[in-house]
Amino acid sequence: MSHEQSRQVLLARRPEGWPEHDDFEPVTRDLPELGEGEVRVANEFVSVDPYMRGKMDDRESYTPPYALGEPLTGAAVGRVVASRHPELSEGTLVLHQQGWRDAAQGRGEEFRAVPEVPDVPTSAYLGVLGGTGLTAYVGLLDIARMQPGETVFVSAAAGAVGSVVGQIARVKGAGRVVGSAGSPEKVRTLTERYGFDAGFDHHDGPAADRLAEVAPDGVDVYFDNVGGEQLEAAIGALNRYGRVACCGAISAYNATEPPLGPRNLGRVVTHSLTLRGFIVSDHLDRQPDFLEEMGPWLREGRVRAEETVVDGVEHLVDAFLVLLRGANTGKMVVRVG
Amino acid sequence: MSHEQSRQVLLARRPEGWPEHDDFEPVTRDLPELGEGEVRVANEFVSVDPYMRGKMDDRESYTPPYALGEPLTGAAVGRVVASRHPELSEGTLVLHQQGWRDAAQGRGEEFRAVPEVPDVPTSAYLGVLGGTGLTAYVGLLDIARMQPGETVFVSAAAGAVGSVVGQIARVKGAGRVVGSAGSPEKVRTLTERYGFDAGFDHHDGPAADRLAEVAPDGVDVYFDNVGGEQLEAAIGALNRYGRVACCGAISAYNATEPPLGPRNLGRVVTHSLTLRGFIVSDHLDRQPDFLEEMGPWLREGRVRAEETVVDGVEHLVDAFLVLLRGANTGKMVVRVG
Repeated sequence: MSHEQSRQVLLARRPEGWPEHDDFEPVTRDLPELGEGEVRVANEFVSVDPYMRGKMDDRESYTPPYALGEPLTGAAVGRVVASRHPELSEGTLVLHQQGWRDAAQGRGEEFRAVPEVPDVPTSAYLGVLGGTGLTAYVGLLDIARMQPGETVFVSAAAGAVGSVVGQIARVKGAGRVVGSAGSPEKVRTLTERYGFDAGFDHHDGPAADRLAEVAPDGVDVYFDNVGGEQLEAAIGALNRYGRVACCGAISAYNATEPPLGPRNLGRVVTHSLTLRGFIVSDHLDRQPDFLEEMGPWLREGRVRAEETVVDGVEHLVDAFLVLLRGANTGKMVVRVG
Repeated sequence: MSHEQSRQVLLARRPEGWPEHDDFEPVTRDLPELGEGEVRVANEFVSVDPYMRGKMDDRESYTPPYALGEPLTGAAVGRVVASRHPELSEGTLVLHQQGWRDAAQGRGEEFRAVPEVPDVPTSAYLGVLGGTGLTAYVGLLDIARMQPGETVFVSAAAGAVGSVVGQIARVKGAGRVVGSAGSPEKVRTLTERYGFDAGFDHHDGPAADRLAEVAPDGVDVYFDNVGGEQLEAAIGALNRYGRVACCGAISAYNATEPPLGPRNLGRVVTHSLTLRGFIVSDHLDRQPDFLEEMGPWLREGRVRAEETVVDGVEHLVDAFLVLLRGANTGKMVVRVG
């Protein structure tokens, strides 16, 4: 039987502020004999995501924290290489949560068989066809209830979720789509690759001023991936009845002091604004609609999904640190197969 | 023809921070001859409300600011004393927006005839049967979507809106209803008069600590009348899927510096919270449902509406200043008839 060992990453200690290599410990573990009802999976791609930083702290959140000294987990896609489960034969492509490793093993119920899509790499299940794409879809259409003709602002717009938000907004008839990103190169990709009308680099002075330049008639929908200064700028720019889909606050994830809140929250009252947080796992009922729409959009090139692929299970921690610094474009995955 | 003069209050200058008497100018004006289609109304009661402070600043809000040197306006209830309008005969009880004065005159379309309710003073149309009651009803049931069994927290809970919110929550089956107020006497009225389970004085140390004592299992719905520290405390106490109806931010109305925002807004994401602002004038379609429910609640004593009545048109400014300092209990009205 192949893949008798699994190269994994343990959480060695809880990061203070920005994580460092010493917070992690790579280990190689022998996999136990396959039990009845279990499968063994050779991972092809594993995901690194900003939310994982939150799980490294020992505090309540929407999912429990990672345990110290235990292997990290997260989304992964791979193929069954050994099976004692009746419905998962060898060679089946599966999506599961035993990421941060090159080989996984567990009860068949933990692994979900997914169809192969021609001309689409299996890593898409970690991104545009997976939770990332569904997050963009649900956040924009269900949480923020974007209507045709509206102006949409997306932060971290060159990122995995943000780039898909902007493209769905375009396909669904937004009047104007603008985004922010963390470098001139990323800002260029917004307009040149993803069809945004305009973008700005959030390092270029006050976000409120930059946003006013690219959205002079205000904003109707803000898809918030970052919190902090850009959330305040967006609240200040929102038109009456504006909506914010609160998806993340990456600007605060590594802060050791509590961040300052937006000083203009009074506009929520004066302008009848709505701020609504969500997590995608509460909206899995939308997956069929989502896949039915996203499949054609991808095939027709109306949505382009960018990936940054880091090669090698030994670079998992590097990939995660790069992600937190924002040096990737599009969904960040690690090829471990 | 009676009421040939109108005693009114002009905005003499825009207040800086807390308003003072010198910001206002009482005047007596002759009313012009009644034009075709016009009515003249002897006001019985006029309303003073916190939102009026916002209109005294020269800045964009949900309604235009008051003009300098012009009479202030607001809700008022009175009787037609002269009419050249076919549908509004003398003696008709009407609700309208020419408050801050003892006599009003204008086109009949500005005045809405309302039925007399036995045993209920006409001032109720400025409070529990008017915008105040509808604000409580819409905010709690439509904006925050309170469900039976949930824990509801109301700030400024002894006030006009807050006291009705708490009582509607009770009638609609809330599991626990708690509120904050600005004095020990007001806190006592919450439990003794309005049926709250518990309350606290927001001067008694950190709001987060006090709230944790009265709502140890967290809060599902927060009806926010004050913003600031109590909003932050509520966000920190909200259970997953918690909702905030953002109705006002009286704590900031007289601030000359922008207030600090809540430092825990990240919980909007981690706990799938919703903050939603609203103004009652967008929800007038709910008025029939509201009146149909509120009428019986009032008659059965299930909802008690308190008023602070100040007597005399010459005390309008005093009443408004008292309101801003929070020294009233329940709806603040001025008897001008």
